[in-house]
Amino acid sequence: MDCHSCKRIKEKKELIFESNKFVVFLAHDQTYLARCFVDLKTHKASLSDLTKEEWIDFGGLVKKLENALIKSFNATMFNWSSSMNNAFLESFPDPHVHFHFRPRYSKEVDFQGKIFKDPNFGKHYDRTMHTEIQPNVRKKIIEKIRENL
Amino acid sequence: MDCHSCKRIKEKKELIFESNKFVVFLAHDQTYLARCFVDLKTHKASLSDLTKEEWIDFGGLVKKLENALIKSFNATMFNWSSSMNNAFLESFPDPHVHFHFRPRYSKEVDFQGKIFKDPNFGKHYDRTMHTEIQPNVRKKIIEKIRENL
Repeated sequence: MDCHSCKRIKEKKELIFESNKFVVFLAHDQTYLARCFVDLKTHKASLSDLTKEEWIDFGGLVKKLENALIKSFNATMFNWSSSMNNAFLESFPDPHVHFHFRPRYSKEVDFQGKIFKDPNFGKHYDRTMHTEIQPNVRKKIIEKIRENL
Repeated sequence: MDCHSCKRIKEKKELIFESNKFVVFLAHDQTYLARCFVDLKTHKASLSDLTKEEWIDFGGLVKKLENALIKSFNATMFNWSSSMNNAFLESFPDPHVHFHFRPRYSKEVDFQGKIFKDPNFGKHYDRTMHTEIQPNVRKKIIEKIRENL
């Protein structure tokens, strides 16, 4: 069980919701409030391997997640990416299709006594920044998104 | 006509191919050989606005483009992203759904007398690097991909 995505799916830790084909988890880094990982349930290596059903399911998930983030935290827009670079640093690459979801905010968000401010709205996300937040606030973020799904 | 994607679609400059719903263009920066932009033909603001038909079409395009890049230049894997940050630097944001496609290479590629070497394979793409190449080589890259579609 070396695959990060398979591990997340098995452990179900900080799972927000799942569709038929994908599972959404709160990401550790919360520089961009409600940053998530979206894992394909099946271990497949590349986006080329996705079926029509998986793409339709993904489209529905995108709509549901983006709408929930607008309702929950007034997110302005969203960055989506699928890279899977890390897997290729291994001797025997075994990538698993997943997406990075970063909501972006033109205005700061005051949630649970903490101010979340997008550090560079309108520009590419900054991967050098890492924002840790308390487990109880993480739990509240998950609950808030779930209320708005 | 301030929309970059609408402008590209209208001008058709360095267009590689099109599906029913999207158009693929060679990107200016070629740090990652055969980097492309993939524009939705319709001016829509966010991935939430895509229909099932558009997602199915996109899935087919992904497969076609990735396979062509493996055949053309032995690309190892691919980074896909959809951000649209720039549009939100405007006073009246008017984003247009598009994707960034960056083929990544574990081995260097010798093409048309030029060596293309992925500067950081296995890691996130580097947006600070810009690689300009001659128009005749750009044309050959487009032709090569087309041959393998």
